[in-house]
Order: sequence, then C-alpha cells, then structure tokens
Amino acid sequence: MRPSGRALDQMRDISIETDVTKHAEGSCLIRCGETHVLCTASLEERVPPFLRNTGQGWVTAEYGMLPRATTTRMRREAASGKQSGRTQEIQRLIGRSLRAGIDRQALGERQITVDCDVIQADGGTRCASITGGWVALRLAVNKLMKAGDITMDPLLDHVAAVSCGIYAGQPVLDLDYPEDSEAGTDANFVMTGAGRMIEVQASAEGATFSRNEFESLLALAEAGVANLVAAQKAAVA
Amino acid sequence: MRPSGRALDQMRDISIETDVTKHAEGSCLIRCGETHVLCTASLEERVPPFLRNTGQGWVTAEYGMLPRATTTRMRREAASGKQSGRTQEIQRLIGRSLRAGIDRQALGERQITVDCDVIQADGGTRCASITGGWVALRLAVNKLMKAGDITMDPLLDHVAAVSCGIYAGQPVLDLDYPEDSEAGTDANFVMTGAGRMIEVQASAEGATFSRNEFESLLALAEAGVANLVAAQKAAVA
Amino acid sequence: MRPSGRALDQMRDISIETDVTKHAEGSCLIRCGETHVLCTASLEERVPPFLRNTGQGWVTAEYGMLPRATTTRMRREAASGKQSGRTQEIQRLIGRSLRAGIDRQALGERQITVDCDVIQADGGTRCASITGGWVALRLAVNKLMKAGDITMDPLLDHVAAVSCGIYAGQPVLDLDYPEDSEAGTDANFVMTGAGRMIEVQASAEGATFSRNEFESLLALAEAGVANLVAAQKAAVA
Amino acid sequence: MRPSGRALDQMRDISIETDVTKHAEGSCLIRCGETHVLCTASLEERVPPFLRNTGQGWVTAEYGMLPRATTTRMRREAASGKQSGRTQEIQRLIGRSLRAGIDRQALGERQITVDCDVIQADGGTRCASITGGWVALRLAVNKLMKAGDITMDPLLDHVAAVSCGIYAGQPVLDLDYPEDSEAGTDANFVMTGAGRMIEVQASAEGATFSRNEFESLLALAEAGVANLVAAQKAAVA
Amino acid sequence: MRPSGRALDQMRDISIETDVTKHAEGSCLIRCGETHVLCTASLEERVPPFLRNTGQGWVTAEYGMLPRATTTRMRREAASGKQSGRTQEIQRLIGRSLRAGIDRQALGERQITVDCDVIQADGGTRCASITGGWVALRLAVNKLMKAGDITMDPLLDHVAAVSCGIYAGQPVLDLDYPEDSEAGTDANFVMTGAGRMIEVQASAEGATFSRNEFESLLALAEAGVANLVAAQKAAVA
Amino acid sequence: MRPSGRALDQMRDISIETDVTKHAEGSCLIRCGETHVLCTASLEERVPPFLRNTGQGWVTAEYGMLPRATTTRMRREAASGKQSGRTQEIQRLIGRSLRAGIDRQALGERQITVDCDVIQADGGTRCASITGGWVALRLAVNKLMKAGDITMDPLLDHVAAVSCGIYAGQPVLDLDYPEDSEAGTDANFVMTGAGRMIEVQASAEGATFSRNEFESLLALAEAGVANLVAAQKAAVA
Repeated sequence: MRPSGRALDQMRDISIETDVTKHAEGSCLIRCGETHVLCTASLEERVPPFLRNTGQGWVTAEYGMLPRATTTRMRREAASGKQSGRTQEIQRLIGRSLRAGIDRQALGERQITVDCDVIQADGGTRCASITGGWVALRLAVNKLMKAGDITMDPLLDHVAAVSCGIYAGQPVLDLDYPEDSEAGTDANFVMTGAGRMIEVQASAEGATFSRNEFESLLALAEAGVANLVAAQKAAVA
Repeated sequence: MRPSGRALDQMRDISIETDVTKHAEGSCLIRCGETHVLCTASLEERVPPFLRNTGQGWVTAEYGMLPRATTTRMRREAASGKQSGRTQEIQRLIGRSLRAGIDRQALGERQITVDCDVIQADGGTRCASITGGWVALRLAVNKLMKAGDITMDPLLDHVAAVSCGIYAGQPVLDLDYPEDSEAGTDANFVMTGAGRMIEVQASAEGATFSRNEFESLLALAEAGVANLVAAQKAAVA
Repeated sequence: MRPSGRALDQMRDISIETDVTKHAEGSCLIRCGETHVLCTASLEERVPPFLRNTGQGWVTAEYGMLPRATTTRMRREAASGKQSGRTQEIQRLIGRSLRAGIDRQALGERQITVDCDVIQADGGTRCASITGGWVALRLAVNKLMKAGDITMDPLLDHVAAVSCGIYAGQPVLDLDYPEDSEAGTDANFVMTGAGRMIEVQASAEGATFSRNEFESLLALAEAGVANLVAAQKAAVA
Repeated sequence: MRPSGRALDQMRDISIETDVTKHAEGSCLIRCGETHVLCTASLEERVPPFLRNTGQGWVTAEYGMLPRATTTRMRREAASGKQSGRTQEIQRLIGRSLRAGIDRQALGERQITVDCDVIQADGGTRCASITGGWVALRLAVNKLMKAGDITMDPLLDHVAAVSCGIYAGQPVLDLDYPEDSEAGTDANFVMTGAGRMIEVQASAEGATFSRNEFESLLALAEAGVANLVAAQKAAVA
Repeated sequence: MRPSGRALDQMRDISIETDVTKHAEGSCLIRCGETHVLCTASLEERVPPFLRNTGQGWVTAEYGMLPRATTTRMRREAASGKQSGRTQEIQRLIGRSLRAGIDRQALGERQITVDCDVIQADGGTRCASITGGWVALRLAVNKLMKAGDITMDPLLDHVAAVSCGIYAGQPVLDLDYPEDSEAGTDANFVMTGAGRMIEVQASAEGATFSRNEFESLLALAEAGVANLVAAQKAAVA
Repeated sequence: MRPSGRALDQMRDISIETDVTKHAEGSCLIRCGETHVLCTASLEERVPPFLRNTGQGWVTAEYGMLPRATTTRMRREAASGKQSGRTQEIQRLIGRSLRAGIDRQALGERQITVDCDVIQADGGTRCASITGGWVALRLAVNKLMKAGDITMDPLLDHVAAVSCGIYAGQPVLDLDYPEDSEAGTDANFVMTGAGRMIEVQASAEGATFSRNEFESLLALAEAGVANLVAAQKAAVA
C-alpha cells in the first residue's frame, strides 16, 4: 500500500557515518533512506550574552537545504536574503530538542552549534537532523571530555526523532516524500533513549484526526525512536 | 498552588467582543484573562498564484504584538526589519489551524486574511489568536453568505485552541504568563467543535515528560476547548 | 457641505480613555471621531549612546498601523521588512513634537518611548498620535514624580495637534478621511497649551495655496488645538 | 551677527550650471554658497502601475548625499542597506513639490525622475535640491517639446525653495550649516514663481515659536524665493 | 618547503565522483586534496527576461560554503541575510567561466544553474567549483542530448581552473589553505581544454609582483589545468 | 577602426582636478575622457576591530554610481537596499589595490576610507577610481605628514590602473563604453609607478583568448599606466 512497498510500521534504512569533515569537533552524515543530512557540531568557548557569568552553556542549531536537495531547485536562502519561516521553525525545533537532553551546567560556559545541512531530501529532514545532530553533539562532547575540559558528561540521554502520519487512512511510520505530500495528518515525535518525550507535533494537513488515531501514531513513534537510538549507539560506539 | 489561585483545571475568564473595527469584514477583541488580542478578517477577491483558476480559496493569518503588549517593551518588528522566528511560527500555526476547518472549494476563489494583533499579553497569545481568529473568520463568511456570494457554508466546524502545561509538577489548564515562564512542559492543542484534533504541540521546556503526563494534558485540553467553543457560539449568535 | 455634515470649524468628537493597558507606564486610547489610536509610554533607565553621561533624557516615538486599520487591508510593515517613508516621517514628527515640550535635563538620564498604534483610521492619525502620545507621556512622568525619581516636572506645557485643509475651496478644521483624500491643501499644526507653535506643515496636494488661505488654516488650528488641550486636561485630571 | 557676516535677509551666492552630464535629459549643478547639489532629470516612456492607461504622467525624485559631502564622513546608505528616515522624508518632499508645479495630463504617460545628489553640504540641501531639480526638469521638458513629443508645456510655473530660521533670536534667511545646527526654529518654504505656496514646514528645534515670529520667516522666504526664481530664469534662458 | 611536502609544481590529488545526488540533472563531488565541493546542475525550461524570445540559453552559478566547512565556524549567509562580497564575486566568476565554454544558441532557450556548495575547505574552493561545475554541466547537457531535446552539443570545450601563487618567494601550483593564507601573490587561472584562457586573476596580497613572476605562474597553471581536464575526461567518460 | 577614432595604443585625455570638496582630507575629480569620478579620502583616528592595538592602519574603499551616470538611469543602490555584486567586487578591488601600495605600519592606527563616486560613466570606471583614489589618498597622507602626525611616508609608490581589451580582433588600450560593451576580452591592470603588478584581471567576454593576445594586452597596459602615473605626479605636485 505504501509507495515504497514498506510495511506500515517499517522504517527506511538508517546509516550514520561519523567524522565526515575534518574541521568540525563532531560530525556525521545521516541517511534515512534517500534523505541525507550532514550534521556538524562546532564548539566555541563563549556563550550568548544572556548566559555570561552564569556557569551555564548553550546548544543551538541551524538548518539549511542545498538548493538542489529537492526534486526541483529551490531558491538559495542566502540569495533571497532571509531564512523562510519553515527553516526558522525547524532550526528552533532542533535546538530545543537537543537542549532538552543536556545538562547545561555540566557543559560549562561554552556553546555548541549544530549545523544540519540537507544534501538530499526525501521527507523527514527535520527528524533526521535531530537524530544526526545528536550524534555530532555526542562526538563533540566526547572530545571535550577526552581533553579533560569537562569531567561530568553533560549529555543526559540520547535524543532522536521520527515522523509518522496517516496515509491513505492508515497510520504509518517514517514518511518519505511521496507519503508526506499526500498524508492527511503529519506528526513528528522527539524522544529520549529512555522513551520520555521531548516534543510532540501533530498537524492535520488535509483532515482532522481523532484521539485514537493520534494514539496509534504515538505507538509507532515509540518503536521508531528505539530503532534510531540503536543506530546512534552503533555509530558512536 | 497556581499563582492566580485558579484550580488546576480552571480556565481564565473569556470574553469575545465582536465587530470592534468598522473597516474589517469580520472582527473581534478576545480577552482570555489579561491576554487581549484584536482579530480582524479581511476579504479579497483574489487568491495566491498557486490557486488561480482552481476554484479554491485560501485562508491565511498574520500575527503581531504591539511593542508594549509585554511587561518590558519589545522592539517593533517593523523597525527591526523582520519578523522573528517565533512570530513566523505562530502565524503559520494560526493559518494552518483555520484552514483545517474550512472547505476551500466552498469558499471559492477568494482569500481571507486573519490578522491577530496582541494588545496585551499574559500568556497563551497564540491560542487566543486562533480562537478569536475563528470568530473573525466566521463573521466575514457570514457577510459573504448574507450577500449571496456563496451559498454553501465553507466553515466545517468551530476551531479553538488552549494551552496546558506541567507547572510545579502538576498538569494545569490555560497557562498564564507566570506559569508559562516556569512550566516544565508547555503544550498547545487546537481542536474542532466536535473534539477532533487539528494540531498538537507539546514541548519539554525544562524537563522531559512521560506518556502519562501527556495524556493528562490532552484530557485537560479537551475540556478547555469545549469551553472556548461555547464562548465562540455565544459571541457569533 | 462637509461629507460628515460638520460646520467648517467643527471638530470631531474627542475621547481619551487612560490606563488602557496594564504593562505600560502610561497609556491611553484616543478617539478623534472614527480615528482610534492606542498610545503607550514606556520608560527605560538608559539613554541613546549620544546622551550618555550628559544628565539629559530622551523622548522618542514609533508609529504603526494595524493592517486592517484602513478601508482596504494594507501590507503589514513587519512582513514587508521595512517601515515606509510615510511611517518614518510620521514617527519622526511625533518624537520631535513631544521633545519640544519637555525639559530633557529635568527628565534625567532616562528614555521614554511613545508607541502610537492606529487601531482604526479615518484621517488625522498623526495628529491624534501626538495628542494621545502626550497624554501617555504625561501619565508616565506622573508615575516617575510620584515615585520620587524626579522632583521637577519635565513637561513644560501640553502638546497637541490638529489637521486643517482646503476642501471644496473652503478652509475646514479636522479633516476626516473623505475630506483628506479630496483636499487641495492639507496642513498639520502642532502647538502648545499656551498657543505657541511647535510644527507647521502645509502641503499643496492638488492646488497651490495663497498666503491668505494659509492664514485661515492657522486660525482654525489655533481654535482646534485649544479644544484638544482641554480634552487632555480632562483626561489626566 | 551671522557666522558668515551676512545681513539677516541676505542669501548666499547662487550659481546654476546647466547640462553638466552628458547622459541625462536635463541636468544642473546648483551651488547655494558651499552647498552643491547635482540634479539630473531622467525621462522614461512608462509610468507607475497606478497611472497606466490614465493618460497622465508622473514626476518623482530621489535624494542622496555622497558619504563625504559632510564635515565628517557619513555611512553610505547603499552599504547600510537602507535609506534613512531623513532621506526618505526629503525625497518625498522634493517629488511632491515638483509635482505641484506640473500639469500631469499635459505631460502624458511618461515619468521623469529627478535625482538630487549632494556633492558638498553646508545646510539647505533639500531647498537647493528643489530649486535645482526644477531646472533639470525644465530642461528635460524643453527637450520633449523641441522633439514635438508634447505640444502644451506641462510646467505651470517655477518651483523653488528656501530655508529660514530663528538664529540667536533673530529671523534670518537661507541658513548655512553653522546656523542650521544652532537655530531654535528651522523652516522650509516651497513656492511658485507667482508667490503661491506649495509647502510650508516649520519646526521648533530648541524653542517653540510665536505666530509673529512665523510671519517674519514667511516674509523673508517670499523675498528669497523671488531671488531663486530669477536665478532659475537666467539659467534656463 | 611547502607545508604539505609537495613539489613546487605538484598538484593535490584530484577525485571527481559523479551522480552523487538523485534529483539534479547533473552532479559531482570534486575533491582537490582536502577541498571538497558538491556541484549540481539544474535545468529549467525558461530563461531570464532579457533572453526571452532570443532563442538563446543561459548558464548561471551560485556558490556557498557550509558554515563549518572552515577551520572555525563562519556565520551562515542565509542567517546573516546576505551573501558576502566574496561569495558574490566567486559565483559571478564561476558563471562567467562556464558561459565562456558554451554555445548559448545551441543550448536553446533554457537555463542551467550550477550550484557549488563547499562541504570542506582547504584553499582553492573557487577553482574546484569551476572544474567540478563543468562536470555537472556536462552531465546535464548529456541528458538533454540523450533525450533528443538538443541535437548539437552546446559545450565548446572543457573549462577548468587552478590557483597558483608566490609562496615563500617561490611560484607554486595549486595552493592549499596554509599556503594561500601566507602567499605574497595569489592567482587563479581559468582555461579551456585547448589551453585558451577564459579568466586570469592575479592579486598582490602582501607584495607586488614582477612580470617575470607572473609568467612563471601562468606556466604552472597551464600544466595544472591540463591535469584537471584529464580528470574531467575520466569522470564523464 | 575604434569608434572614437583613437589609435590602438592611444589613451583618452586624462585630467585630475584636486581639492574639489572642502570637507574631505584629500579629494580629486578624475576625468578619463567622458568617464568622471569624484574621489575623496576620509581620515579617521580608529581602525577596524581586527587591527586594534596592532599599531597598523587600514585603507578601505567604497564605490558608487550616481543613478544617471549611465546612458539609461539605473536604480539607486540605496533605494534597492543593497549594493550589487558588481559594486562590491569593484570596491574590494579598489581597496586591495590601494593597500598594496601602502606601509600600514607607517600609517599607524588610523583608517583612510576612499570613496569613488562615478558622476558620469563611459567605460573604465574602476580603473579611473583606482587612479583617482590614489591621488585623494596621497593628498590626505600629505596632510597627516604636514601636521607631523606621521613622520615616515606610508605610501610606497604610485598605484594606477588601466583597462585593455580585444576589440574587433585587435588589442586596444583604455576601452571606452562602446568598445567595452563589444569587446571579446576585457582586462584591467593595476600597477605601481615602478611597473610592478598589483592586480591582473582578464576575462573572456565573448571569446576565449590566447597567451599571445594576453601578452599584447599586458604590454599596452604597461605603457598606459606610465601615462597615468605621470598625470598623478602632475596633479599632486
């Protein structure tokens, strides 16, 4: 029934390749099927003004798509002179999600910026960005700990995200672009390794949804995130 | 326990005053406690380019805050030269929510722009904007129907929204600003008059949340939205 | 002869409601007929860089119109990414006018920002903004004096403004929008309570004007401002 | 008493050199003392959208200052990414003033853009721009008439402008920069060759002014504009 | 003597991997040592306004760097709201260079946009972009020809680019970042497969250079471009 | 053969008028045929942040064209809200060229900004800007030395620039606009008084060029720059 022939609860293949750029403190290329996102974590020994002299650190994120990551070329945001509302919404979500998994006191007064740049898009780029962004963050923090700059691990747990939706009347896990563009309801779930929730976003695209349908999406997401966390563990091992 | 002395499941007083400006096709001033939002619906006999010659209409929304709607003055977005990511995220949510409650074919090739301008803020401005925005939209559509410009009512159901959160460890309904700024989890629910869901957004601000906690918020919201829909009905009667 | 049926030297009804928002140090909603402007005065204990360590304060103003304050919806300036030349010209005028009525040494090193947001427009919004802005400023200064933060009243006199114009060949007082859009000459006069002049702006829109005609406008304005000052006195009493 | 030693009613030397650039349809370099402005008039056979198919033409103006036209270098507006409020206010005034002296029906559906670029500033740049801008406009219209493109002269009369002010308590004509920066009141008058008024702008900079003082400024301006019109006549003869 | 231990006339390893993204009509990942650039060619069946109805096509280019392509993170241009002067200069060079190698009449009225996004930077990104951009363009044109949309090959010859410089007093070929940042003179040469020149840019960074030194750079470049053209041929074979 | 009737190696008449504005520390109006550029040098006793406390100074440049410097009016960059890529490329070239001729240690911690504003354009504006900009810089430095603020002359040599190109198949010196718009190859050469090279930029506009052709252009440029340096010497004598 799904365009890809996947079962309703079947995710796309996940691959997380680490240390893919030589300059960043942490980096990975995450592939969720045909969605490919390059994630880098950049460490700076300074924090935004509102955190100076508080002893606390900050994690923030930026998101972008290469102009031809999509089926037809999209205008380069640097050329149009501003980030779209969609881009800003996504990068705010990534930053908020990663911060929910970190002890900012343990990080100390430093900032880590996670850049998520979509090389190729086929649906679910924000979820892939969160899952891959956490890996880049983990690797950058590992470097800090190895160097002895921090002693207590500031990462509280894994953070990963998956999309679900109601496609052709059925709850399905991990939407690809053909599904995403036709889904009646589209949801993103960000969770921890322990299965606690960080962010839930469900949105009626073409049709409203019932509480029962929403519970089905949530159940699919719990299984999906567990898979992603396992892939993160393998990647950073 | 709540700063306002309200019960955990008690909403703030709601007041919806209609026809508050003489130019707009529909308008209201919604007051949810000390949060006051002026909502206007403006009708145009044209649609965005992607809808031309499709026979379908469009509903969109814009959101703004007067500079001194808040405790301390915020910079005017027109002066800073761009809308913040928060503003864009909110107005995208309002537009998406209102569109979920409309039959765009029945509306015909015309556009209704709902402007939500916060006169005074005390938490929950995006939810008040959706609830009040629907009233302005309803009034503008009534005018179209009365004039015989459309014959079938394009509004499928009421659309209203409420926030909930986990404050001091307890699920509470309809956060005001003192609660919102301290809440561990903050959620917004947009629903129809029939109790179907349009948008669910829950976000861990200071602490992750369990599935059980999330279910409690959802139950509170269902009751809250029912109240808001009743207030809408009274206002447009 | 006037569309509204008013006499040539008859103003619209004036109403000034004070303390209309809970956060601002001073606020009012001024209604000049169907023109409604919300004015707030916001106090900050800092001055622009060029005044630091001079012992002098500053008063500045910003002006905006809600998108549907007008007959047809205008584009939101925050969305278009800049304030129009008209907006900038008006807010410069408001700030200049209010500063002319203040002893900046007596104010001390603090800044008061007066925001004038047009809720509904029917001509004369810049004049209503000045007249209402002065009331908001007066209330904010009263608060400072009551708190003992300043001992000498920095407000030297009332400041109020009115428009006049040559409509259908006749000098008339206090133009509403139907008159304003047809007037051959359009003038704005800002004066003090004592009748001294702060700003005179007269502009040939469709036809040049003689010195005699100009003198007639000036005489009308003197009477009009006296009325406005009386309304201000009643409001802040 | 004046820093320059001029009498109270004495203007600076005026020089208007015409045809100073080879590309523009009309051009002049106007020198009012040490204030030098290059004015060009550019003709286009198209009008703004709101005038299409109306048979009417348009005259508009743009104003700029070279970065080092002033005592200390000012930031280039093209580099800062926007025109200041002052620039916009001035160019709106120039355009409005020149349009008041033209029969737009007689001009036909074409647009003339008058660019006024200040090469060197010493006070009174907006007045010099209007006076010089009219000369450039006159020359461009002459070219149109000579070519037979229009048969009736669309220019109704001369348009010229001068500043006056109250300096050291005395009304003086044609302020230079040292006077302008110290003047208690600053006024600009735009008039026609016949002495009718187009624009009056008087502004209390440091002190309010009486009606009598204002009348003195007006009388000075009438004499000043007559001088400028004579210089225009000599230049375009 | 060179930081990398290379001989003065020795280039870095070149690798060109083609068809690296699934959406673009042509794409490659070019690696010149540690400089990695992703190049895509996007075809559109429309041309810029100035070419409509001329029968001629257009090739244009855009350039960007991922924020952490560099040693320390650079601000994302989309976030800062504009492309830097350097970015604009580079993308103008890439577009001009590729257009010099194409018969725009043979291409027909269509546009190909070449996007060059630097994944990792180590000097010479503009040269790698040109060399890789040509490969992406070649592949996109091949697709057009295979589909029978054009019959005559519009690509006149290969286009490739290499940098040279005077480092530690010696002319060297293919500067990496440590050399580039220290070089007294920095030059970029764009040439065709036949060795004809498209663009020469030589710039004194720390010291002026003699005609003799310049000739040495030119000779090195001729050899370098020949190598790059061989790599292009292998890649597109 | 040349539209102007000049010999292949014949330059246009050069005129350099100095001290043309009263405020700038150094200024000139350079005329290369019908190309006229006003150059000013502005001195500030501060340097950009990256040079603070280094004892070194900075020279930078900005470039602009008056809207009607060209055959048809171009949009004012201040009005369009940004400098074009061409403008930025040119001003970067001017600044880089002038810095190559200065000992920044000898200049001390101060900045000189050279503004080059094109009053009338007929090809070669960037070269005229460099040649005239150097004169303005020389005059400003002379003032510093005369005042005893610096003791060692920081200007190492003259800096001047000329364009060459292949027009109608022939190498020609000092292109005017009719030649520039038709030339197959267009090159700019910046050199010192001693004939050493600062910047070489050659670009195939319509046809690629051979090494031999390039050498011819270089030879023409060497003669041309010598002429320009002689004109500079005469101007500043």
